[in-house]
Amino acid sequence: MDLVGLIEGKCRVIEAALAQYLPDDGHTLTQAMRYSLFAGGKRLRPILALLAYEAAGGEETDGILPAACALEYVHTFTLIHDDLPSMDDDDFRRGKPSNHKVFGEGMAVLAGDALMIDGFGLVARSTARPDLLNRVLAEFSRILGARGVTRGQADDLYGGEVNPKFLRHIHLRKTALFISFSMRLGAILAGAQDELIDSLGWAGILAGMGFQVRDDVLDVTSSLKELGKTPGKDEAEDKLTYPALYGLQRSQHIAEGYARRARRIFAGLGPQWSVLVDLTDYLVDRRR
Amino acid sequence: MDLVGLIEGKCRVIEAALAQYLPDDGHTLTQAMRYSLFAGGKRLRPILALLAYEAAGGEETDGILPAACALEYVHTFTLIHDDLPSMDDDDFRRGKPSNHKVFGEGMAVLAGDALMIDGFGLVARSTARPDLLNRVLAEFSRILGARGVTRGQADDLYGGEVNPKFLRHIHLRKTALFISFSMRLGAILAGAQDELIDSLGWAGILAGMGFQVRDDVLDVTSSLKELGKTPGKDEAEDKLTYPALYGLQRSQHIAEGYARRARRIFAGLGPQWSVLVDLTDYLVDRRR
Repeated sequence: MDLVGLIEGKCRVIEAALAQYLPDDGHTLTQAMRYSLFAGGKRLRPILALLAYEAAGGEETDGILPAACALEYVHTFTLIHDDLPSMDDDDFRRGKPSNHKVFGEGMAVLAGDALMIDGFGLVARSTARPDLLNRVLAEFSRILGARGVTRGQADDLYGGEVNPKFLRHIHLRKTALFISFSMRLGAILAGAQDELIDSLGWAGILAGMGFQVRDDVLDVTSSLKELGKTPGKDEAEDKLTYPALYGLQRSQHIAEGYARRARRIFAGLGPQWSVLVDLTDYLVDRRR
Repeated sequence: MDLVGLIEGKCRVIEAALAQYLPDDGHTLTQAMRYSLFAGGKRLRPILALLAYEAAGGEETDGILPAACALEYVHTFTLIHDDLPSMDDDDFRRGKPSNHKVFGEGMAVLAGDALMIDGFGLVARSTARPDLLNRVLAEFSRILGARGVTRGQADDLYGGEVNPKFLRHIHLRKTALFISFSMRLGAILAGAQDELIDSLGWAGILAGMGFQVRDDVLDVTSSLKELGKTPGKDEAEDKLTYPALYGLQRSQHIAEGYARRARRIFAGLGPQWSVLVDLTDYLVDRRR
């Protein structure tokens, strides 16, 4: 099966599971959560978790699907809070008005909170071995919390010196470690050995950095329609991005350099990991 | 040992553990988290968890202390977000300027997020049996998320009809279920039987309702100095409270009625639970 067909198949499984986990009960809070959760995300993180789970030998879908969907819950939480007026103040996300523009700021804060909290609950609902679930929950918290994604967002908001080191720090905390964790989660729940989990984690960081640098490039080169969020906003606000520091062409080269290093590690893990080799190419070549 | 001495002892254990879990690393995000976590809270939820753990036969402190402290992390998260301008817009909390008045709105959102996320991580760090930890994590998420505390806050914000049923719904979601869960958590991690856990949960809801009704009463009768948050604010804003619906005297009677029913259940659990009988009296008679 080609990569696109494979990804579309996984995407359908994830969409169906998300719809089952968060049905519309008519409550405004639920509707605010659903508005952003079903706003046309690429489902990259859960797809990576499913692919890593299968490549690592995992079989029972119930052992991974709730945890994989939790990644999307939590990713959506970070987007809702990042868009708030007190943060990046972004009016558009995925081609639609951002959550707080539709539901008001207070409800957007709560919708993010609830997605985060219910995301942890989803992980705990997976049927994997309890000790593996605990490991996942502990790592999930570490990747996201005061030393992870949340600190990355704080540093991004309140700044630091505009230099390559600080930029890498932000991209690592806000994106790459989360992408990497998505793959690690799949392997951990499949019962993989630590050596494999560690290699995967390292390759995931490289792929995640490539993905984020490509994101910076797309922000400059895309239209609102293609991108779904306000394009050029980073530039207009003097935000710390790769194109701002290195220019467009060199940024794309940097993205491809990260991808090349990630691919080499995935390829070394064995033939069942070739799908992640192909997916890595897609991450730094995508149009949205 | 008298109740006050016992509570003060537990409080010292919790303060020491919290200081160890969240040391000052000089980062603004950490400082914003610490500002609210160490703002003089009563530590009621972790104290309840420790007392229930011991009464249910739990022995190893490491099996409960991180999870107990997680209750305080998450409680603090709800206070920081509730005080935000887009929510209750409260300038004072525990006698000090609220988090967003000191650190700005964006950082306050992130400090709340990080406390919640790291709270889940703390639970996962307890040394209790993995299956028990998973049960706790799943319940914690349910009590807090889109059908629990967060929904309670959404309903409180965006209103409903001012009637006794709606008021009970808010107090149940925002406070009583969380208080109840704090006791259940202790019993679950001690390996207690479901029957005990259920009785404790029910008594906890009653004690939690009494606690919250007393809170409403204190809001009317206290000064800023005694209360630590803006007194009379509920009244001024036509907020849904027991005194607004029933008057002060009848509200205090209602609080005592809840406490009486809770005490009866605690007393029925056996002599080792007498500390919770005494503590319930304190909850509806406290001055702050």
